[in-house]
Parts: sequence; structure tokens; C-alpha cells
Amino acid sequence: MKLMRYLLTALLFYAGQVSADCLTRGTGDMGIIIERAAGRVQVVDRSTHQSLFRVEGFGDLSHASAVYSPDERYAYIFGRDGGLSRLDILCGEITHRIIQGGNSIGGAISQDGRLIAVSNYEPGGVKIFNASDLSLVANIESTPVNSEKRAKTVGLVDAPDQRFVFSLYDTGETWIVDMSNVEKPQVTRFKDIGKLPYDGLITRDGRYYIAGLFGQDGLAMLDLWHPEQGPRLILEDYGKGEQKLPVYKMPHLEGWAMAGNRAFLPGVGRHHVMVVERDSWSPVAKIPVHGQPVFVMARPDGRQVWVNFAFPDNDTIQVIDTETLKVVKTLKPGKGALHMEFAPRGNEVWISIRDKDQVQVYDTRSFELRHTLPADKPSGIFFTSRAHTTGL
Amino acid sequence: MKLMRYLLTALLFYAGQVSADCLTRGTGDMGIIIERAAGRVQVVDRSTHQSLFRVEGFGDLSHASAVYSPDERYAYIFGRDGGLSRLDILCGEITHRIIQGGNSIGGAISQDGRLIAVSNYEPGGVKIFNASDLSLVANIESTPVNSEKRAKTVGLVDAPDQRFVFSLYDTGETWIVDMSNVEKPQVTRFKDIGKLPYDGLITRDGRYYIAGLFGQDGLAMLDLWHPEQGPRLILEDYGKGEQKLPVYKMPHLEGWAMAGNRAFLPGVGRHHVMVVERDSWSPVAKIPVHGQPVFVMARPDGRQVWVNFAFPDNDTIQVIDTETLKVVKTLKPGKGALHMEFAPRGNEVWISIRDKDQVQVYDTRSFELRHTLPADKPSGIFFTSRAHTTGL
Repeated sequence: MKLMRYLLTALLFYAGQVSADCLTRGTGDMGIIIERAAGRVQVVDRSTHQSLFRVEGFGDLSHASAVYSPDERYAYIFGRDGGLSRLDILCGEITHRIIQGGNSIGGAISQDGRLIAVSNYEPGGVKIFNASDLSLVANIESTPVNSEKRAKTVGLVDAPDQRFVFSLYDTGETWIVDMSNVEKPQVTRFKDIGKLPYDGLITRDGRYYIAGLFGQDGLAMLDLWHPEQGPRLILEDYGKGEQKLPVYKMPHLEGWAMAGNRAFLPGVGRHHVMVVERDSWSPVAKIPVHGQPVFVMARPDGRQVWVNFAFPDNDTIQVIDTETLKVVKTLKPGKGALHMEFAPRGNEVWISIRDKDQVQVYDTRSFELRHTLPADKPSGIFFTSRAHTTGL
Repeated sequence: MKLMRYLLTALLFYAGQVSADCLTRGTGDMGIIIERAAGRVQVVDRSTHQSLFRVEGFGDLSHASAVYSPDERYAYIFGRDGGLSRLDILCGEITHRIIQGGNSIGGAISQDGRLIAVSNYEPGGVKIFNASDLSLVANIESTPVNSEKRAKTVGLVDAPDQRFVFSLYDTGETWIVDMSNVEKPQVTRFKDIGKLPYDGLITRDGRYYIAGLFGQDGLAMLDLWHPEQGPRLILEDYGKGEQKLPVYKMPHLEGWAMAGNRAFLPGVGRHHVMVVERDSWSPVAKIPVHGQPVFVMARPDGRQVWVNFAFPDNDTIQVIDTETLKVVKTLKPGKGALHMEFAPRGNEVWISIRDKDQVQVYDTRSFELRHTLPADKPSGIFFTSRAHTTGL
């Protein structure tokens, strides 16, 4: 009987009816792990903590990020080398791959899941692709800096009402692109938002877009419910008195945590996490921590904030209680603790430990190490539940 | 070639290798529609607005509700007749079904997805089952009312840290069951929370449990971050001056909308929606609406609140702008507009129109009717994205 099944499967595969490797299963508890050095991606099962596929052929995956289709079947992976790949996580294969730019820094998926936008340093601008076949839909060129160069685009996010929002590093602008009509992208441009925006984030409700500024203190905020009011500078002391740091050491803005009505921000080049009242954007407290924070991430219920740190403190993770504003736990998972991803209901967190070639899974209530998965120099971890969340 | 494929598929099916009907696809954009009168469930594709399966055999589906496994493959459907069914939405078949009580009113899934809890009127109490095979794990009996009867359990929700929370109608209690150790459920009981709790809700972050009271004005609130403080009465005017209504006409508490830092509540027996400041729980405004609100639901980005109404106004849906607190749209979709379900990123809303035997899909930005699906007396609509949200 076993042999018969094997033969039949082989025949069916030959007939092109099914791929022998495709899985029939729910995709809600799946995810990917970026194996940066190898240019490889692992597809994982979040429930059983198991690896399902190892897929090659993604090019340069340093600083790679990913978004998911609404059905949670396809991961769109943005490589540093301008590569955009569409990975079928049920079959463990790349269905489409293009090199869409020369030097790329992240992407986003539209609210309806039909468009993929990619942000480029070179040539500066945002390209928008059809999510099903990666054909080009729109090419939004950024402002020219001189006769040869256009501004680098950074901090690209999706926003409600089929919009994308991003900033222009060299020229200090934020642009909103409304793709409701794919034939006629509507671009709204805001100038003089602040000097040298280097990254951006959107709040989970899709209302506020905030750009980090490399060239000055403070942050530029745009209320997307009222774009007509234009951007304004908030937290004018943010970064103040700090030595200017190279861009690649600036904390990630995606790493901002929102817990209840407060935001938790990494202090720039300082050993603290800032706490800010949302809406008024006024500072509430500074929480001393172990090193320079990189990602400051809220457990989905907002009860805890988990923090990782820049070199040489990247062997440490600290957990802050969002009510007492105290560090309640310090973990030493190993050197190169680069990225954290929470299970959507918050019971577990997965942490990439680059120098140990492993991903560790912790229980967020007991802080116990539950499981360890082997992974080759892991960096980003992305779960499919991101498909349902604005800005992720 | 077509014939060959057909023959091979038939053979494989015969060999038990694959079910001819199972789908290999992502489950993130799937959902179910309850066809109440027929005791049937439709499995639907949210992206294409298509029906995939019609599945029979669920018993009495009046007031039925559903939760999803973390992988978004299995829907657990709670029937009014005490039936608990596990539906495989990829294969369109019931994998397990039990009659677990005499008269049941909703259920919940644990944070880790391994336990299903069901709340029973008769016999009063909560039963907890293994999610993979529906075997009984724990039977939490409620407080006896007399020698023959125990208190009805209502308002059952899941909470972070592997807890379930529910209330006891007859005895005015709220109980927390901690299932971290399935061998030893830990029950914490709060007495005198208020008279005759009839329903409950948990805020999206899993912090506040709020019970509606049938026997008095106000609502009972328990801060699950500080259960030691016990429950307290909030909104003491809520329901005040109203004639006592039969339980089945009380507004659903699941229908509370949280938008930013405000909650939007159905006025009890009145033609208004109440707006309340969260944390202080003090009233901000009353918004006049078309009839007695039943469900008051926030679009996921919190920009709009959609309201449906009790008979005789159940042919109408109104949309409130959460910033101006004004009704911005009145729709007349047809009689028996019973239930609304938003796409997780908020671009569309699906509405059951019972008396037209259809489900209507609206664009939430333009308010245009995009699509209509036939459905036999549809009531509840449940999308798989609920799998990733506490309390849904």
C-alpha cells in the first residue's frame, strides 16, 4: 500500500497536478527566519517549533525584511541588493523574483494585499508592483538632488485607504501615495519636515506616521487623519546632546512599542528607554537599561516591553514592566541577539542569536527557554500574523 | 492528459492519500458564515468573495459563535444546544463533534490554542476540552443555586497567561480560571460583583474584563493586571431609568468598540451610542442614532464605528466618525442586518442580511456595495484573523 501511494504520488507529480512537497495545512502559525549570511530563508511552524523548509536563492539578505499576503501563503522578501522575492511558504519555493533596484531598504504591502511597494536608495524612489506576478505598476521617482542623483527613500510603510507613506533622506520630505486608482497614483508631498529623515514608523491604528531625523533633534510627525495640517516636530529633545552617529547605528523605528496610551522609544546612543504619552507626545520617564537599545518591542498585550541592545551589549535582553516602568528580567541568551518576534497572542517570543547559530523560544510569563532551533546566522524573524496588521 | 490526472486523483483518493476535496491554500483570508435556520456553515474566501464549502450537521445554530485554532485551519463552533463542533475549513468537514451540555452560550480558546472552554446555562459551569480531539480536560462547576440547579455561566472570554474569565448570572460572581497547569486548574472567585451579570467582554489588550448587569445599573469591571483589587462598579448611570428588558434584547457586549482611548457602547434600550473615556471610564458623549443599537463595532483602525439595530430598525446600519462623533453614513442594506465582520486591515466589512438570504460586502471608505453572496438566513460571520486576537 505504501509503495502504491508512493508511485501514485510520483505519477501525479509527473503529471504536474501537485508538487510533491506542498503542504496542506493552515498558515496562521507559520513564519520565516532570515539566514543572512547564507542568503537563505527557513520556513517554520510556530506551534511545533519546527523547521519546514530551507529555501535558497534570495541574494543579499543583510537588513532583509518581509511582508505577507492577506492569505498568509506568500512572503515578499526585500533584500539589500534590490531583490524582491515572492516565497510560497506552503511549497517552500520562490515563485517570482526580480532585481527591482540597486540598493533597497524595505517594503510594504497595500491594505488590500494587491500591491507591493519597495523603497530604494539607488535610484531614489519607490516602485510599486502587482503582488501576484511582481509586474511593475508604478514608479514614483523621488526629488532630484543633482543632475545624476535622486533622494534616497526611507521609512516606507502602508497606511489605511490604500496608501503608502515614506520619507526622502536628502531633501527632508515625507510623501503620501494614494493607490486607490492604480492607473493614477496620487502623490501628496510635504517639504521641510526636518533634516535627514532616516527611518519611519506608523502607529498600529495607521493614524500617525513618525520619521526619525538624523540631521537634527526631535522627530517629524504626520497625522494621516489630517494630512492637511502638515507634519510637525515632536519630542524636540529626542537625541539632544548626543554625538551624531552613523546611520547604521541609529535605533530602528519599527522597534517602537505602543503599550496602552504610552510609547516606549529607544534612547539614541544612550542607555535608556524613553516613555512618552501618546497624543500629547510629551515625555513621561527615562528607564535606565543595560546598553544602547536597538529594538524596543511590546508584548502584544502591552504588559511588557522587551529590549535588545547594540554591540558590545548585544548578548543581553531586558524586559520592562510597562506599569511599574522597571526592568523585571535580564536574560543572557548569547552574542548577537538581533531580532525578536512575538507570537500574536503574546505567550511566546522568538529571538535570533546570530553568534550561536540558533533561534531561542521563550515563554513570556515564566521567562523560561522553551525551545532552540538551529539556524545559520539568523537575523529577522517574521510570523504570518503580520498579514493582518497595518504597518507590518 | 486531463483524463490521466483525473484517474490519478481518483486512485490517490481511493488509496487514502489525499482527500479529493481538501484545499492546499493559505488560510489567512478565509472565514465562515453561520446559516442559522439550516444548521449549516459556509466556508468562504474573503479575497475573492466566494463560497468554498457548505457543511451540514451542526445542530441548533441560533446564537452560535466560533473561535479559531492558531493555525487558522480549525473553527470551533458553539451551538445553542450544547453542541461543540470542530470544522476543518481546508477540507470542509467536521472532524469532531460532541454535545457537551444542555444549553450553551459561547466559548473561547486558550492563549496557546490547546484548550477550548464552553460556557453552559444547564448544567451551570464551564467545561474545558482538549482542542485537538475535544476530550474533556476540566469541568468547572458553578455555584449551586439550590439543590437541583447551579448558576448559569455567561460572558466567557480568554485572557493572557492561559486564563479564562466568566461570570455567574444567578449569584453575581466573576471567576478566573488559570489553566497553566491543566492537571490543576486554579480558580479565583469574586463575589458580589453586581446583580445578574448577563454578558462580558475583555478589552483587546486582555487587561479589563467587563460584565453587563441585568439586575442593576452600571457595569462590573475587573482589572486582570490587578485581580487582587477585585471588581468595581463603573458607569453607574449605564442603563439608568430604563425599563428592564428581557435578557435576549440586551445589547451584545462583544459589540463594544474601542477606538483610540475611547470606548463606544450601545445605549441600553435607547436610541444612542455612549462614548466613554477609557481608564477613567467616565462618559464623554451620547451620539443620537437611528434605533436601539445591538452591535457597535470599530473599524480596525478606529476611524469609524459601525452600528446595527434591534427590531424594528434592523434594516439599517449607521457609521459614526470617531473624531467628530457624528453619523457620517446611513445604509439600508435590508431587513435583518444581524452581524458585521471587518477584514482585519479594515478595507471591507461583511454584513449578514437575514431576510434577504445574503451577505453583503461593503468598501468601508466609499461605502459602496462591492459584492453579494447568497446565504440561507445568515447570522454570525467569523474570519480566521480572530485566531490572532485575544478575546475573539
